[in-house]
Amino acid sequence: MSDVLGADTALADLPLRDDLRGRSPYGAPQLDVSVRLNTNENPYPPPRELVDDVTAAVREAATSLHRYPDRDARALRADLAAYLTRATGVAVSEANVWAANGSNEVLQQILQAFGGPGRSALGFEPSYSMHPILAAGTRTDWVPAPRRADFSLDGAEAARVVAEKRPDIVFVTSPNNPTGQSVSLDDLRAVLDAAPGVVVVDEAYAEFSARTSAIALIEQYPAKLIVSRTMSKAFAFAGGRLGYLAAAPAVIDALLLVRLPYHLSAVTQAAARAALRHADATLGSVQALADERDRVVAALREMGFEPVPSDANFVLFGRFADAHRAWQRYLEQDVLIRDVGIAGHLRVTIGTPAENDAFLAASKAVREETSQ
Amino acid sequence: MSDVLGADTALADLPLRDDLRGRSPYGAPQLDVSVRLNTNENPYPPPRELVDDVTAAVREAATSLHRYPDRDARALRADLAAYLTRATGVAVSEANVWAANGSNEVLQQILQAFGGPGRSALGFEPSYSMHPILAAGTRTDWVPAPRRADFSLDGAEAARVVAEKRPDIVFVTSPNNPTGQSVSLDDLRAVLDAAPGVVVVDEAYAEFSARTSAIALIEQYPAKLIVSRTMSKAFAFAGGRLGYLAAAPAVIDALLLVRLPYHLSAVTQAAARAALRHADATLGSVQALADERDRVVAALREMGFEPVPSDANFVLFGRFADAHRAWQRYLEQDVLIRDVGIAGHLRVTIGTPAENDAFLAASKAVREETSQ
Repeated sequence: MSDVLGADTALADLPLRDDLRGRSPYGAPQLDVSVRLNTNENPYPPPRELVDDVTAAVREAATSLHRYPDRDARALRADLAAYLTRATGVAVSEANVWAANGSNEVLQQILQAFGGPGRSALGFEPSYSMHPILAAGTRTDWVPAPRRADFSLDGAEAARVVAEKRPDIVFVTSPNNPTGQSVSLDDLRAVLDAAPGVVVVDEAYAEFSARTSAIALIEQYPAKLIVSRTMSKAFAFAGGRLGYLAAAPAVIDALLLVRLPYHLSAVTQAAARAALRHADATLGSVQALADERDRVVAALREMGFEPVPSDANFVLFGRFADAHRAWQRYLEQDVLIRDVGIAGHLRVTIGTPAENDAFLAASKAVREETSQ
Repeated sequence: MSDVLGADTALADLPLRDDLRGRSPYGAPQLDVSVRLNTNENPYPPPRELVDDVTAAVREAATSLHRYPDRDARALRADLAAYLTRATGVAVSEANVWAANGSNEVLQQILQAFGGPGRSALGFEPSYSMHPILAAGTRTDWVPAPRRADFSLDGAEAARVVAEKRPDIVFVTSPNNPTGQSVSLDDLRAVLDAAPGVVVVDEAYAEFSARTSAIALIEQYPAKLIVSRTMSKAFAFAGGRLGYLAAAPAVIDALLLVRLPYHLSAVTQAAARAALRHADATLGSVQALADERDRVVAALREMGFEPVPSDANFVLFGRFADAHRAWQRYLEQDVLIRDVGIAGHLRVTIGTPAENDAFLAASKAVREETSQ
């Protein structure tokens, strides 16, 4: 008998929805390991100037904490639009941008507005594992579609499957997580032309790629295309939880119907705006990470591994006879990477040069062991 | 033709869910008015010490913004448990508490876990208008049940309706928004005994009431009872967006299955913990507001209005031949109150003494006008 109030009641005693029974919460193991390369975080802490500016902005916001925040986060959306305009060369307005607590909430709102019971969402697997989880959470049927054996997206085949299955929502992740490849605008156009509903291009890792953003296609496909982004990775703002999207203004009107009122706190809005003012400095780390990624890929190949070409801040690599056993061997060497459930493969996030060296040293040991 | 990207596409051009078509976004008008008594905010800005402490806590958190926050917000939940233990005298543990971005997100998660398609939620109307909106957002059928003509809850009748309708979720708001009355533990027991599923007692305004919290009943009803709270009102933390709940640990296990990973930012967790350290100072305003509420009720009654007895920081009052017209007359006198859609009634939030004086002066004018 526990001292904790109500601790004798078990999950099985509750009137939980049947489809949730037996499921486990999503999430990578949070382990106490020296080298953590498992959740695609940016390894570089925010620069001192950014911390100072976030602090000052939050102090200002804190004086009005007794009041609700701007429900529509207009100032933040204007700042995000200005950033996207600079980054992509496409003139993006405040009315084109929506923001929420992480891209998970942005994607959940899209599913609430355009998916739900009796509707379906299609994704090309393997891809970001939260897409089917968010679909399930909104009772949207999930339709998995294949990629090529090398994990790249076959645009013509993708368009054919979309035309056949007619999903209400299509997810295209570019660069794809956990495999790393980007999708070309030509392939996206093929999918957009075939899609009867909306197409969500999840560009969480776009800043690490030299490819043109799908935002360039919004003008051509205003009633179909939604491009989601996050400040978690390139902006090194994972702890701040700020996801956003670009789309036609009518899409934002639709999301206003399903968003929780005052979903984005005054503190989050202020902190994100401050972080955006330091975009140039923060994004400076992006090129360094891309260079390190290329070094890691070359070193892995040299050792006899098969890394998948990556436009992101992580690398999927194989092949392992037993990927989970290999993941465990890395952990024993104090290096935490990710077993994403793809047979024969593991995913490593690109860290600092020292972290990558530690990972490569561990890789050498794992390789020698598995070659014996 | 607009300069805004995709502005020529209308909401009607999008493949929006049919049940969302023609709906308007939730939210009180955000108008530029001197005296804003429409959203039940606490009128007292955070004290200087609290702002300093929030700022210092956020500075500390900001140095690690490149890392994801604690997904399970354990330190914050422990602090909230300690507060609830002090406030209610019931020994509440970290394992009994869950937190999210405002009580709206807490309630949405409850509906995702225990409601959804094919399930139903029942509420006693008029009550918090977000309950049916959140039910609709999770495709949970909404079952409205009545209150007495004076807006109080009839426990025996409530239990009878619950036994008859057998909803999966029952919402009981105590003190009730927008009417102000609390529900007794005896009436809650009657509802809990009758309920086949879970009962959510929404105690957003509990700190303004002298009634015993429903948290006292968790030990007796661990598989049924969930008590939700917010820091928005008594804690003067509406801008910080922190809602939470107390329940048996198994209920929190259930919510872990539906919550978005990393839903609560490191900044929000740090700011809320700092604000909780100043609970005694912040809650000092609660008694002042309760005293002002009683003064406003007495003055309204003296003028010939019919205020509904309130345990909260707002007062519902009537009667108006045309409530919306009366609301407009207040607005013309630079006083923004709330037309909550109850015939013949309006709701006023209790503000500072000066704001309440302004409201009462406007009330006198409105009263004289409508008596003519």
